[in-house]
Amino acid sequence: MPVSESSLVRRYSVKRLSHGNAERVVDIVAAEEPLEMRVEYWFKDTRLSQSLAVAMRTPGHDRELAAGFLVSEGIVRTPRDLAGLHPLGPEPSNEVVAELSKDVDFENWRTERSSLVNSSCGVCGKRNREAVASQTRTVIQDDFEVDASLIEQLPALLGERQAGFAQTGGLHAAALVNATGSIECVFEDIGRHNALDKLIGHALLSGRIPLRECILFLSSRSSFELVQKTAMAGAPMLATVGGPSSLAIETARDCGITLLGFVREKRFNIYSGEWRINS
Amino acid sequence: MPVSESSLVRRYSVKRLSHGNAERVVDIVAAEEPLEMRVEYWFKDTRLSQSLAVAMRTPGHDRELAAGFLVSEGIVRTPRDLAGLHPLGPEPSNEVVAELSKDVDFENWRTERSSLVNSSCGVCGKRNREAVASQTRTVIQDDFEVDASLIEQLPALLGERQAGFAQTGGLHAAALVNATGSIECVFEDIGRHNALDKLIGHALLSGRIPLRECILFLSSRSSFELVQKTAMAGAPMLATVGGPSSLAIETARDCGITLLGFVREKRFNIYSGEWRINS
Repeated sequence: MPVSESSLVRRYSVKRLSHGNAERVVDIVAAEEPLEMRVEYWFKDTRLSQSLAVAMRTPGHDRELAAGFLVSEGIVRTPRDLAGLHPLGPEPSNEVVAELSKDVDFENWRTERSSLVNSSCGVCGKRNREAVASQTRTVIQDDFEVDASLIEQLPALLGERQAGFAQTGGLHAAALVNATGSIECVFEDIGRHNALDKLIGHALLSGRIPLRECILFLSSRSSFELVQKTAMAGAPMLATVGGPSSLAIETARDCGITLLGFVREKRFNIYSGEWRINS
Repeated sequence: MPVSESSLVRRYSVKRLSHGNAERVVDIVAAEEPLEMRVEYWFKDTRLSQSLAVAMRTPGHDRELAAGFLVSEGIVRTPRDLAGLHPLGPEPSNEVVAELSKDVDFENWRTERSSLVNSSCGVCGKRNREAVASQTRTVIQDDFEVDASLIEQLPALLGERQAGFAQTGGLHAAALVNATGSIECVFEDIGRHNALDKLIGHALLSGRIPLRECILFLSSRSSFELVQKTAMAGAPMLATVGGPSSLAIETARDCGITLLGFVREKRFNIYSGEWRINS
């Protein structure tokens, strides 16, 4: 997804030292700015407004980022749940407002989330995993399969599409890969969570949630939160260039997601859901 | 800082594919579990308790993580601000409770933070930067200087101390480096923010905040939040193996922090505070 170069990167005059020799150069770095995501929602026929989160993100595709965040958090499930989605104030804006439909019970979501965070019965990985698995178990597609050779080709394909990373070395990418191994779209962001949220938001806005018959391919490592986002989007497979965390593996196994790691140099590890990879 | 190996890593049986050939191997991955950080505080002679945050972290040094988080957020400034700091329930525990001293005005912090996040006047990078700079400007040490050759040696020194990274490829490290270039301590975590918070918490608990005459060296990229944490700890220099974001550079310049990036292979870039590096 091309955005103007100026939204992804910034230029700075810096001093470079190499083996003790100094020179002044122009360095291109990844842009980072805060995005405030607000929701407007209905509670008992009253319209209310609330700040949901502030993401430190690379500007560009802010509507997708907010939409993806709403899907990942379980607030929005279909495009119909969104009555509106727009930046606030003149562009470039660092605020985006999501208007929730009357059907969306945001107050209930808020209460449940608050009780999860504030409960005094202890937090454990098991509970987080179970919460994700119970919400997504019926959605994840079971019979999707791909050949190992298709996975091996992903790093080279993604490399061609990472414009921002090539310039800065500081941007993560999230790619939506279809069943034939073609990359449909790529989103770059300084944060790997943001990059995936942008991809998921794009999918929601184009009517593609739940994401079936596809692979989400990330330039980063995988964590609990990235597997959670994958599950909430209904995608059957998450592949990453880096390795997974323990909780990423446990959550993928609970949700029935195929989790691949260290996808590079014609190799990869299968941490969960082996049946979807034909070797 | 050694912790038991079992807290940093986990072992999984996985299927490895290499150029189409499959084998079953045991893979060692970075441990990730949630840590709930709670505060107990005083408000008008009443003792109150609140959940502050849940960090997805690698277990180990949880007290340091919570203490560092409290410093980074500006809630705690000296060891005296903490009346107690302990895990809740039997160990290994995923909850830690910080008892704030009566002098700490947590209610005021909560109100200010809430107004910052919920204000309708817009969020901008400039405001975030100014908030950090105004809180820390008088603390950052101006006359600290080091030789470029000392910086060039950091990657090799850190590499020797990253036990968890060597095993998993999935852990970030934060090192406290003194003025002679020796690494005093290293903390590893799946999250770069957690690794730095653990380091800062260790510094608080050992009476070393504000951190003077030192370099914070991270295996990761740098972002606004990492510069913010550096500033709140009073450290004059942040060096990272990866590159900085635009907001990391702007914030370092506002705060008078020396920011170094791409510190690897006897090279590095100076993004801010050149006067502290003798070349």
